[in-house]
Amino acid sequence: MAEIQPFQVMEIWNRAKELESQGKHIVQMQIGEPDFSAPDPVIAACSEALKHNPIHYTSALGMPLLRQAISQHYRERYRLDVPASRIAVTAGASGALLTATGVLVNPGDEFLMPDPAYPCNRHFVRFFEGRVNSIPVGPQTQYQLTPELIAAHWSEKTRGVLIASPSNPTGTMLTPEALRAIIETVHARGGVAIVDEIYQGLTYASEFASALAYSDRIFVVNSFSKYFSMTGWRLGWLVVPQDCVREVESFAQNAFICPSAPAQYAGLAAFAPETTQILEERREEFRRRRDYLLPALRELGFSIPVTPQGAFYIYAGIERFAADSGKFALDLLNEAGVAITPGKDFGAYQAERYVRFAYTRSMGDLREGVRRLREFLCA
Amino acid sequence: MAEIQPFQVMEIWNRAKELESQGKHIVQMQIGEPDFSAPDPVIAACSEALKHNPIHYTSALGMPLLRQAISQHYRERYRLDVPASRIAVTAGASGALLTATGVLVNPGDEFLMPDPAYPCNRHFVRFFEGRVNSIPVGPQTQYQLTPELIAAHWSEKTRGVLIASPSNPTGTMLTPEALRAIIETVHARGGVAIVDEIYQGLTYASEFASALAYSDRIFVVNSFSKYFSMTGWRLGWLVVPQDCVREVESFAQNAFICPSAPAQYAGLAAFAPETTQILEERREEFRRRRDYLLPALRELGFSIPVTPQGAFYIYAGIERFAADSGKFALDLLNEAGVAITPGKDFGAYQAERYVRFAYTRSMGDLREGVRRLREFLCA
Repeated sequence: MAEIQPFQVMEIWNRAKELESQGKHIVQMQIGEPDFSAPDPVIAACSEALKHNPIHYTSALGMPLLRQAISQHYRERYRLDVPASRIAVTAGASGALLTATGVLVNPGDEFLMPDPAYPCNRHFVRFFEGRVNSIPVGPQTQYQLTPELIAAHWSEKTRGVLIASPSNPTGTMLTPEALRAIIETVHARGGVAIVDEIYQGLTYASEFASALAYSDRIFVVNSFSKYFSMTGWRLGWLVVPQDCVREVESFAQNAFICPSAPAQYAGLAAFAPETTQILEERREEFRRRRDYLLPALRELGFSIPVTPQGAFYIYAGIERFAADSGKFALDLLNEAGVAITPGKDFGAYQAERYVRFAYTRSMGDLREGVRRLREFLCA
Repeated sequence: MAEIQPFQVMEIWNRAKELESQGKHIVQMQIGEPDFSAPDPVIAACSEALKHNPIHYTSALGMPLLRQAISQHYRERYRLDVPASRIAVTAGASGALLTATGVLVNPGDEFLMPDPAYPCNRHFVRFFEGRVNSIPVGPQTQYQLTPELIAAHWSEKTRGVLIASPSNPTGTMLTPEALRAIIETVHARGGVAIVDEIYQGLTYASEFASALAYSDRIFVVNSFSKYFSMTGWRLGWLVVPQDCVREVESFAQNAFICPSAPAQYAGLAAFAPETTQILEERREEFRRRRDYLLPALRELGFSIPVTPQGAFYIYAGIERFAADSGKFALDLLNEAGVAITPGKDFGAYQAERYVRFAYTRSMGDLREGVRRLREFLCA
């Protein structure tokens, strides 16, 4: 546990709360949670289940109907054949990552990951006494790993890679070709790929390519928290190779018994056409926000060399303003009332040069945030 | 993972389902889940929250109101002062055990546990590469560890003990004196005690003694699944020493983000007087079932030398009937349509001599089960 760092952003959060309790208004651009709640049909499905169904344990891998619904979602929306038998419903993406790493990581096993990356991904590997080799990535590779980087860093101890597309904090995606080449590189070395696709659905430019199009020998993590706006419910899923299903089931039985049943009932309505309509409107709203915030930040002087194509983050270089992004974020909060996340939360490589903006709040908030940023930077 | 055994009872479950699908009626005495659903006020609290509250992430340690409600429950019902700050709300007792072991267990650390015990408790220690020293216990010590056994088995690698009262599978409890003496023995060696109290509230003879009466330097696991009949919701809690709260919070943030919020809203009503009235009636029903099943099994020839005082299990010796409890359970299912759990699920020590009966089904079912048992044993 000594190596599991607390999120640096907690300092920002706590300070923001303190300021708010003093009556100051804070523009929240640090939050990785959509401002939307679960769509009405999803809430209605849960309410109905509470009325009519006993909320007992479900199968460890989740309700068969929900696993089938996810399989159908892959088929209808992404033209992918992912049998329900390979889908484990989990307690959020957290539960999926815990299951994947619990099953795959033995002490000393090394996993290659990009730096910057979502910090918990690193921690899950550490929980099970694996080692993370964080490979510095920059704008040259869209802040993503490449087959060349993987080949160059592969060692005897390397068990596999953990990649994310779209990425948190950068919002960048792997092209279909890049994704396929990475998986081939890993497989050629007898390794395993864990692919974090929790922002699937929240993409604004190119079509989303799931790694499942290229291999059925990978672990894919997904979530109902982002595109489906079901954060507090704690519902996600994990796609695994067919011959790992029993081991995954055994881990899930022991570690969780099952995912929360009310959330599973709610999830059954997540793929209904009326839900999809709501979610697609929200995606358009996220796109509007990105299309506003991205040029505004660039105009202010932040360096954003790679246009983010998904998720709801912009990873921005602050080299024109400051040398220490932690101090920059704290000053910005204290002096201008804008909360953002310093780069340190996502790794070590050039972390002091970057901050992450989240566009998870309304256009009005974003405009006010940009106004305050302009004032702060020109002061 | 290779050392994480699947539950043996799964074979029984699958066979039972198979028989049911052939139209046979099976008396279920293998189920560790109460037949009651969440009390109406609990369901109503969740439905109301779904109407009025956005279901967003909560604090990693749970909603402050729920932590306070649990603290108040300890104060009002058990006259114990357990501050809310030491209480972490978790995804069931599973989440509590995962958190406790995640924080406490380093590779090679040894934990002492009784054999028989709840199998997942063993597995949680193994997940984090700890070792379990399972100490054989029998009726002489109420199937519980004693200070003498702990002292005799303590080694340089021993980090602590994991005990349960009431115990699954035996239903036996530690007396207040025994509990206090165990904790003192562990503390005298600089060790840590994890105490599983998930059957708190479901006791039928002596008053329940929480280990929290004797130390604030222990980890206590609890659950909304048993006394509160909230199985599928996946809600529990963990009480930790004050100076471990930050580490526990960091683990919970990383591993879970937070417990499922709809379940937390529901849990807020779990301690209301109208809920308690329902739950106390259910406890009386469990007592009636125990008071029927226990003498009936003894009369049939099962050996039950220690009267179970809590939970909803009877651990019964089959030495008068058979030498292999796994085969006995399967024969009983196939020939008489009664499902029970073989001793192997709970350890290795004399496991072939024992089976576990659960009284989680109606009096009618229990009577039919006993009738079928009589027929089977006399055939």
